[in-house]
Amino acid sequence: MQENKPELYTSLSPSLLNLYDVEKSIVVIIDVLRATSTIATALYNGAKSIIPVDSVAECIRIGKQIDSITAGERDGKIAEGLAYGNSPFEYPREFIEGKTLVLTTTNGTKLLHMALDKNAKGIITGSFPNLSAVCDYLLEKKQNVILGCAAWKNRVNLEDTLFAGAVIQRIGKHFSINCDSSQIALALYKEAKPDLYKFMKNKEASHYKRLTGFGLEKDIRYCLTEDVANTRVVYENGKLIAG
Amino acid sequence: MQENKPELYTSLSPSLLNLYDVEKSIVVIIDVLRATSTIATALYNGAKSIIPVDSVAECIRIGKQIDSITAGERDGKIAEGLAYGNSPFEYPREFIEGKTLVLTTTNGTKLLHMALDKNAKGIITGSFPNLSAVCDYLLEKKQNVILGCAAWKNRVNLEDTLFAGAVIQRIGKHFSINCDSSQIALALYKEAKPDLYKFMKNKEASHYKRLTGFGLEKDIRYCLTEDVANTRVVYENGKLIAG
Repeated sequence: MQENKPELYTSLSPSLLNLYDVEKSIVVIIDVLRATSTIATALYNGAKSIIPVDSVAECIRIGKQIDSITAGERDGKIAEGLAYGNSPFEYPREFIEGKTLVLTTTNGTKLLHMALDKNAKGIITGSFPNLSAVCDYLLEKKQNVILGCAAWKNRVNLEDTLFAGAVIQRIGKHFSINCDSSQIALALYKEAKPDLYKFMKNKEASHYKRLTGFGLEKDIRYCLTEDVANTRVVYENGKLIAG
Repeated sequence: MQENKPELYTSLSPSLLNLYDVEKSIVVIIDVLRATSTIATALYNGAKSIIPVDSVAECIRIGKQIDSITAGERDGKIAEGLAYGNSPFEYPREFIEGKTLVLTTTNGTKLLHMALDKNAKGIITGSFPNLSAVCDYLLEKKQNVILGCAAWKNRVNLEDTLFAGAVIQRIGKHFSINCDSSQIALALYKEAKPDLYKFMKNKEASHYKRLTGFGLEKDIRYCLTEDVANTRVVYENGKLIAG
């Protein structure tokens, strides 16, 4: 029986993605602080779609072509030429409903484009705010899965690894897992689960430090909260939509 | 004061090594099952030196040039043309003392050559059997450190990550650690520490499964035992020697 289960792998960094069989898998793009959390939130609050782009210039270019909101930060500030930032709190329903968001992120978008170039069977994004939706989607599809951590400039990070662990704890038994990275992510999540925020703080996670340097504790707490924006996020034809 | 501490990073896979400043660091090559454990054991038992090579052909070639013992396995068996295997139990003092061992390993040697090509400040090898010697060496040198996991064909593995965690638990406070991979390794080691063997078994670590498939539980238990071959292993002029 076990042989019939689909396989699940965790890629802890974009630099490791090529070790896995992307073409035969659904890839979950994980960029917990804050890209994929903000994406889930905007779609949960009724955004029509989100176009992820990898540069500020591209963001501005598309913003001029279509009726949309351009957003993105560099070094903790709204990037010059863009209108909004990366915080999920900037996208409440009364603002974002029915609108298209063009969002520039670095690590997450890069990984998404890698998965696209390698012809992934499907691409979705994952974050704690939409954890259950991600798990339900993967259970329903019954395909091989790669949990793809966006990391930070290819360096493995705690928060994306923790999210991979959270998915594995919930639905791992439905998959065949012959992957030490997945075991590591699961063990880490189990330790952190009682209080993810405290865990990040105590570990002095590198990104935690970067963001708290900008006074964004509230964002971090939100981005570590499960199911507060519980919508599916599917990549289709260049856009992320509530699937 | 903290600023004066040397930095410590963990590279969880050879694919990630280029993210760190190898040139300014001592790189610890970690290939717990079984290369670096066997290397420590042979040197502890009096081997004159060990020449690590990355192919069976190279191993045979050097074996013909110098008075030495050629060793290496492929798929769990002594490779054709070589005399001995990868098990630490093949290298007791009465056999190996005063001799030169030419050892072919894949993951560990590849990483070592990468560190060499990038002009690492120093290269040593680490394993549970020589954990204390590794820690003492690093404390003494007061240089930046990269704990380099050899992994398995670039895929992150449990055992090398656990060893990185063990080093960090022992001497981490003497270093500045702004590295989530190190935090992950440390958290994992703390969880596993009460019984590393049981932890590996319960997690169904991929390499654990590969090796137990060959009936090598005894080797694994040994390779997870701290300080049973507690010698420094330093790479100098193409050879690993008891430093």
